[in-house]
Amino acid sequence: GSHSEARGFAGFFDLKASGYDDPILVSQTKGLGSKLQIAQACKRHDTIGQDLVALCVNDILAQGAEPLFFLTYFSCGKLDVKVTEAIKEGITEACRNAGCAFLGREIAEVTSMYSSGEYDLAGFVVGAVERGQMLLGLQRADEEDVFIGLASSGIHGQAFTTVRKILLMSSLHYSSPAPGSCGDKTLGDVLLTPAKLYSPSLLPVLRSGHVKAFAFIAEEGLLEGISRILPEHVSALLDALSWKMPEIFCWLYREGNLSEKEMAQTFNCGIGAVLVVQKELAQHVLRDVQRHEEAWLIGKVVAPCHTGGSHVKVENLLEALQLSSPQHLLSNTAVESQQQ
Amino acid sequence: GSHSEARGFAGFFDLKASGYDDPILVSQTKGLGSKLQIAQACKRHDTIGQDLVALCVNDILAQGAEPLFFLTYFSCGKLDVKVTEAIKEGITEACRNAGCAFLGREIAEVTSMYSSGEYDLAGFVVGAVERGQMLLGLQRADEEDVFIGLASSGIHGQAFTTVRKILLMSSLHYSSPAPGSCGDKTLGDVLLTPAKLYSPSLLPVLRSGHVKAFAFIAEEGLLEGISRILPEHVSALLDALSWKMPEIFCWLYREGNLSEKEMAQTFNCGIGAVLVVQKELAQHVLRDVQRHEEAWLIGKVVAPCHTGGSHVKVENLLEALQLSSPQHLLSNTAVESQQQ
Repeated sequence: GSHSEARGFAGFFDLKASGYDDPILVSQTKGLGSKLQIAQACKRHDTIGQDLVALCVNDILAQGAEPLFFLTYFSCGKLDVKVTEAIKEGITEACRNAGCAFLGREIAEVTSMYSSGEYDLAGFVVGAVERGQMLLGLQRADEEDVFIGLASSGIHGQAFTTVRKILLMSSLHYSSPAPGSCGDKTLGDVLLTPAKLYSPSLLPVLRSGHVKAFAFIAEEGLLEGISRILPEHVSALLDALSWKMPEIFCWLYREGNLSEKEMAQTFNCGIGAVLVVQKELAQHVLRDVQRHEEAWLIGKVVAPCHTGGSHVKVENLLEALQLSSPQHLLSNTAVESQQQ
Repeated sequence: GSHSEARGFAGFFDLKASGYDDPILVSQTKGLGSKLQIAQACKRHDTIGQDLVALCVNDILAQGAEPLFFLTYFSCGKLDVKVTEAIKEGITEACRNAGCAFLGREIAEVTSMYSSGEYDLAGFVVGAVERGQMLLGLQRADEEDVFIGLASSGIHGQAFTTVRKILLMSSLHYSSPAPGSCGDKTLGDVLLTPAKLYSPSLLPVLRSGHVKAFAFIAEEGLLEGISRILPEHVSALLDALSWKMPEIFCWLYREGNLSEKEMAQTFNCGIGAVLVVQKELAQHVLRDVQRHEEAWLIGKVVAPCHTGGSHVKVENLLEALQLSSPQHLLSNTAVESQQQ
């Protein structure tokens, strides 16, 4: 639904042509935080564009909103056209994949504020949802509802502050081979893997009426990410053996000497987004989601169990972080019976 | 026309409630560039909020768009609540005055990217205009049309890079008394005077059908600002004695040892916005504008006269910069007869 044209200076968007009758506009703005600094240290600027788009676009998915258009603000000390072009290409492609128009960008040179090679980058998205189709995302989970988890592509959001600290203590550099990887990726490549764009595949699912809530696990870890969409009177019980734990989290766990709780507080631990679904619809929705994304039934809504101040309990996280090879992955059926 | 609510995380905007039937959305994103650094050097953060809102909101006025909602991105090394609150209050008040909703802000702490006290700030506006009421802003000026100039509140946009250079060579500091001022303002106060919000007063005028084009003189000087809205086949002839030259430009002219051309290329020279109006409607539109803003007939559209690569010729700029006291201001009538 993106129809737009750039004419002169501002960005235009033709709302009627995009097919909305009584739209509520939903907007969001995001920055990339510490991940930018890793991109700058690695001198790799082609992936963060998708990260920025994903951060904004996935966030408004929580309201059932389709992204319409996107703008960026780029600020640096001295313009490097190679860098800005790499970023622009990343954003352009991500916008195309997310089905939204890249309407414009502001590029600011603020001499003496940024050191050489440093820049800041912010994204703005405007999306729309028909009045009746708004997904409130809050307080709609009841006991016995089920969590469907979607695979994350790696590390998102604030977790990069911790990643940078761990790397400072470690013997590895961004250019070191990625730990446990069989390919030729560097650690920097793995860390810079951009977040997934969930909107094209999830929007029909979210608007089907079968989903009670959606959380994009981005700026916080799994605990806070899920906690945000839980009503006060329930808790979440997840089983970390029910999904595939990406190797990078196992490495960060060992190298950073972090506790289970710190892992779940800081990282998405392999779950990029979560849907809350009524138990009876779980298999149906799961199949829908699995057409486009790797996804699992990862847990359920239960009676309140405030363990350590959190609404969310993740079982077997230690085991999952220690046994990360795919052969240890249990089938969903096995997990379901475990949970009962 | 701003109806909104903050619910959860993203910002919402109810388009129907704002009264639009077939809206084209117009969006823009802007940063403040070097002006931010002056605010940081002066430790004054209460004025730049309005600057940011004005930069975005005045820009989409050029399309006849009413601002609907506004978001900001704020990035710093270490959060200082006093600073963010001062900025937020400035933005909140400016949004209220501009008639748009302040829907949300992202605050990012990127340790080690920004020095202590440094921050970056970007604004993002979405506005709307009914399909039939779009003001294209381009190629609608014909010979004999007239320019109405609106008083600027001071210096905008990119000019601050030049201002900072001039200050480095000068004996004055930001805390010095403002040159030529009879009040107790410092030079910093004068430099940080925020740009005016033209939207509430100009929107009815722009939508009246009597205005052929509008330019907000912000990110470039008077020459380029007006040149942007001129079709190829015409030029502009302005008389600098027809408007009131703010004292600060006279001081910058003397202190920076700049040429006339450099002044008109770098600064708005007291003209914050320009309307192109048919000659017959000029007095009528001028009276409308003058209800809310200080404004003058400042020149007219003429046959091409490419002087020095520019479409725009400003007569008597030197005189205006040398004789800035109000008693030297000629009446509009006198200027009009001069131009003939």
